[in-house]
Parts: sequence; C-alpha cells; structure tokens
Amino acid sequence: MVSLETVHAAIGQTMPAILYDFDERDTILYALGVGAPLNPFDKTDLKYVYELHPAFCALPTMPVIYSSKMIDDIVSGNIAGIEFNPMMLVHGEQAIELHKQPPAGGKIRCVPQIRNIYDKGSGMLIVTDVTCFNEQDDTIAVTTSSMFIRGLGDFGGERGSSDKITIPEREPDVTHEEATLDRQALLYRLSGDINPLHADPDMAAVGNFKRPILHGLSTYGFAARTVLRHFADNDPARFKSMSARFSAEVYPGETLVTDMWDTDDGVVFQTRAKERDAIVLNNARVIVT
Amino acid sequence: MVSLETVHAAIGQTMPAILYDFDERDTILYALGVGAPLNPFDKTDLKYVYELHPAFCALPTMPVIYSSKMIDDIVSGNIAGIEFNPMMLVHGEQAIELHKQPPAGGKIRCVPQIRNIYDKGSGMLIVTDVTCFNEQDDTIAVTTSSMFIRGLGDFGGERGSSDKITIPEREPDVTHEEATLDRQALLYRLSGDINPLHADPDMAAVGNFKRPILHGLSTYGFAARTVLRHFADNDPARFKSMSARFSAEVYPGETLVTDMWDTDDGVVFQTRAKERDAIVLNNARVIVT
Repeated sequence: MVSLETVHAAIGQTMPAILYDFDERDTILYALGVGAPLNPFDKTDLKYVYELHPAFCALPTMPVIYSSKMIDDIVSGNIAGIEFNPMMLVHGEQAIELHKQPPAGGKIRCVPQIRNIYDKGSGMLIVTDVTCFNEQDDTIAVTTSSMFIRGLGDFGGERGSSDKITIPEREPDVTHEEATLDRQALLYRLSGDINPLHADPDMAAVGNFKRPILHGLSTYGFAARTVLRHFADNDPARFKSMSARFSAEVYPGETLVTDMWDTDDGVVFQTRAKERDAIVLNNARVIVT
Repeated sequence: MVSLETVHAAIGQTMPAILYDFDERDTILYALGVGAPLNPFDKTDLKYVYELHPAFCALPTMPVIYSSKMIDDIVSGNIAGIEFNPMMLVHGEQAIELHKQPPAGGKIRCVPQIRNIYDKGSGMLIVTDVTCFNEQDDTIAVTTSSMFIRGLGDFGGERGSSDKITIPEREPDVTHEEATLDRQALLYRLSGDINPLHADPDMAAVGNFKRPILHGLSTYGFAARTVLRHFADNDPARFKSMSARFSAEVYPGETLVTDMWDTDDGVVFQTRAKERDAIVLNNARVIVT
C-alpha cells in the first residue's frame, strides 16, 4: 500500500534527464517499426526510409521513443519511491505535442517530470511529461505518458477526470486499412523498448497473452502515419499533436483499420484490429494544420 | 582500357583494414534483413532476433557484412588503381568460410586482399578475400567476393577457370519456399550496403530494373538459413562454408524457392524467384557438419 504522503511528494518531481543520441539509421528503423513505407513500390513514403532522399525526415511521432529509457526506469518498478510489480504496469495513454519538426539525427535531451498521480480505485494512474530539447536547447516536443498500475489504487488520492473525445454520429469520413508484419514487434523493439512481452512467447504467456503483443507505440505510429497521409498530404510539418488511449492489445500480423472523422476539434479517430474486431486505440485525436 | 601492368600490380595487394564495431542490435537487424525468423509465432528462430535468449547468436553468414565498407570502397570506382563506372559493377559470387562462430557483438578487424583479377572478355572479374579477426586476433571467417565489371575486359589477362557445381540428376531432396517482405531491401540496407539501387525507384530505373532490387547478400542469407534449418538442425555451429553465384536479381516481395540436394560434396542448392521462375542463386553449396 502506497501512502498518500509518498504520492504527494512524488507529484511534480523531475526525474533524471535522458540523453538520446541517434542517427539516420535510427530514424529509418523507427519508420520501419511503425509500418512505413505504406507502399515501397511508390515514392510517397521514401523520405522516411531513405537517408539520401532530398526531403529525408523523421516521422513526427518519433519523439515518443526519445524517452524509452524513462519507460525502462518506470518498468523497473520504482517511480519516485512508489514501488510495484512491473508486470502490473500498463501503458494507458500517450500524447505528443510538437513544437518543432523532430530532427532525423543528433542529440536530444529529455527532461521527465511527474505531472500527476491519480487514484482510480482498481489502480494508480501516473502521468509523466517529457520535455525534449534539441542541441540548440529549443523545445522539440512534449510527450505525455499515462501509466496504469493495476492493484495499486485505493490510497485515498484524487480520482482525476477523464477527457472523453466524442466520435461524431456519422459514418467515418475516411477509413484506412493496413496490415502489420508478423515480425512488426521484433522490428519495433530495436527502437528501444525491449520488454520481453513483445518478443518471447513464454513471457507473453505470463502476461496472459496468447502470443507476444505489438508495442502500443508501434500501433500509435501506424495511426499517426495514416492521419498524416489522409489529412495533411503526408507532410510531417503539418502534424501538431496527437493523443490516444491504448484500449486493447494488437498481435503482430493483424490488420489495423482506422476510422477517421474530420471535426472542428481535429481529426478524431479510432483503430481496430480487424481480425478480432477489437478496438485498440480510442479516445484519439490528431491536430494537423 | 586498363593496362596489364596495372592489373598485375594489383593482384595480391592488401587493401586498408576495416574495423567493424557492432552490438546485439546490429546482429538482430542483420537476421531480420535476411528473413529471420521463419515464423515469429514459434521459437525456433528466436535466438537470432532476441538478445535475451539464452542461446542468442549471430547467423553464420553475418561476416559477409563486416566488409560492407570494402564494398563501398569498391563501388566508389577505384580498386588498386583500376578505375571504372560504379554502375557497371555487379556482385557476381560470394563465398564464406567459417573458422569460428561469429560473435553477436564486439569489434572485428577485416583485412581485404585482392586474390586475383580475370579477363572474361565482356568484363573484368575481381576476386577479393577478406580475413576477419576477432578481438583475440583469432580468424573468425574468410569471405570471398567476386565482382564483375562490365565492359572492362579484353585487357590481355588470364581468363581463369569457373568452378561448376553440378546438380544431381534427381528431384531435390528438400524444397523450401519463403516469401521476402516488400520492404526487405529497406531493412537489409540498414546492415551497411546503402547503394541507392536497393531503395530509390529512379536509381533502379537507371540500372534498367523495373523496381529497386533486393541485395544479393540478403537472398544469400535467406538461402543459408534454409539449408541450416533443413540440414543442420538450425544449429549455426554446424555451418562451415557456403558459396553461391548471383545469377539474377530478386525484387523485394518475391517468394524464394530453394531446391536442395544432399551430396558427398555438401548441400548443393539452387534458389528461384517463384513469381518469374528466374534462377537467382546457382552454382551454390553449403558445407555443414
């Protein structure tokens, strides 16, 4: 049982800064990990996977991996004095706000901070903000992760509100279908999240999954690419922010179907794993200019 | 026109040593680049793609990429004073002889030497040996590459013999079929051979290919994995040597069909691109213990 004092002391605490030093190969590996290119036989996505392309660039969601090290720290089971069984941790939600186009290589400094900790009854929700700075010390992006720790609730803390993004009551404006690779998780994990759950069938069984599951952040990248293509002419400079909830697991090899609605509050979307008709991303939105 | 004196002076010449410094991620990336795992839903190939596996190891053909830098040097169009248009160069054959199981990470020193240069009439054939040493200075492997430079023949040099590996006059003992990914070349190139021919449709068109082609060495790795699985119980320690000729291009996404014969002189094989019924690897053999 975590004491309310420990929780109060943790809120607002800054965690150790992380240096992420990467190059063009890492940028391409991330792009391949989230499904780019849509079609390797045309050139529309070549700029994400080919460093000699004149417009070579990172996908706008790449900053979510700058802080893989922080996720590692969290998974180790100790956040600001709050101890827990790492197997009880679930990545609940992820948001990203872009201030500048992320670079395709270089050094990034990430400063993680605990924004808030909520008592959801069945578990504890820890919300962290990571501010990412480039070598000129400009803010590139702020990434916000919500981690849910099952069984750690009922400590007397605030419940917090849930932002609910409403899906319009009409057919989707655009629906996009795209298969993941059967080896998508093996590829994505090379971008830094090496949790055995995504590779080892035995560890997946421990987590009650029939097979290793795909990283939520890989699915997240697939969805971002899809919205970017259909609503921003595949121009990463027009991508401003994204948020989504990981509502169910995806198995590598499944087909992702994303329904999108253009609204006054941005592109609202929902992603399903077609084979099981399971909603895997919801409460989800992208803002493009 | 290259003079016979230049050719004679080049034969036996040692090229600058190459240091290849790599880690587990590079080892996994190579494995993914040559098609491992065959099936991500079973565990037979997990040891090649998951660094926490107790038997984690490199695929035995990985040393062919240690010398990517040498291939780069060759592609730059100058080998020991022999100048040529890089677009005229074709990777003709590749052999590898294993002395020790290659490591899954560390530092490798490669010493390339020009073994011989032949006059094939229509072009020049340059054969290089690269001896690869580990940090203890033990020889890990010797890789032999034959590079054919179209249009540079008829300089009055020796023709050389061609070793011909004979296929038995019977049905194959084993036939194995395996699809490559449509993005196989984009993935394989992250192992070091970043020739635009394998990524950029425009550059592929310059080379008279309808699309970017797969690296010969990726196909080579697919074939090696296949023989290893069917004739050596998927145990890399039993893989001793391999040689093959690149007889035609492979387009990413095509299905490779490998016919194999167990003979007194090792496992003789031939690989076809199923969709075009084109033989892509021939004169090919693997020795396993």
